[in-house]
Amino acid sequence: MLTNVEHIGIAVKDLTISDELFAKLLNAKPYKKEEVASEAVLTSFFKVNQTKIELLQATSAESAIAKFIDKKGEGIHHLAFEVDDIFAEMKRLEGDGFILLNKEPKKGADNKLVCFVHPKSSNGVLIELCQEMKNPSTEGG
Amino acid sequence: MLTNVEHIGIAVKDLTISDELFAKLLNAKPYKKEEVASEAVLTSFFKVNQTKIELLQATSAESAIAKFIDKKGEGIHHLAFEVDDIFAEMKRLEGDGFILLNKEPKKGADNKLVCFVHPKSSNGVLIELCQEMKNPSTEGG
Repeated sequence: MLTNVEHIGIAVKDLTISDELFAKLLNAKPYKKEEVASEAVLTSFFKVNQTKIELLQATSAESAIAKFIDKKGEGIHHLAFEVDDIFAEMKRLEGDGFILLNKEPKKGADNKLVCFVHPKSSNGVLIELCQEMKNPSTEGG
Repeated sequence: MLTNVEHIGIAVKDLTISDELFAKLLNAKPYKKEEVASEAVLTSFFKVNQTKIELLQATSAESAIAKFIDKKGEGIHHLAFEVDDIFAEMKRLEGDGFILLNKEPKKGADNKLVCFVHPKSSNGVLIELCQEMKNPSTEGG
């Protein structure tokens, strides 16, 4: 079950500049920064009610974020839903014709197990499923 | 104050096809459909916890949604925040250098007063501010 819009991921060129911009927009500072080496990104998190805004800056030209910005410019990169059971949802969505970008959940930012759905199977929207890890030392990492 | 991610607007070519796709993704049917003649769009609404997914199909080639799809393809079109006082937020954001696309709040879908922020002033993200109208017969229409 998809239980919440967990976050909206926004691709940015320069996290320092964009942190300032979103701090103005949201009238709040980012509450967390995190590097996700496996995705070659630096991230910054803001929170509005029950949904986060995640800013993503590439740390390498090979990062998916760098390629996205090269092609489309800065902007919304993905839409992430919290799920209660990522394995069950992956199976359900695959059965319904959605194309999963990873066959097993992988460790993402913010202590989550994540799976991405290919935008070509979901109206041009890169969808992320994510589920909080209960014990980050033993799951997914 | 921006109090919630009210909805994510997604541009689609064919609302019937996309309603089915999102019904599968979200495991729920759209709870409402609405035509917004002033914007030349047909819309469909899904709800996930406190956030809506709004699908938008153009009803005219002149619609902003038609132009968006021509240029970028189907995908996420805008990010909407609920605000507690749209006039105060418009003034605050304009003072902070954001470019407002309408100088007065206008009537949008879903019984809301809305104002859009130009993506060139907000990291390539088209931002919508929206506030529920208390009395739709006397405000904004």
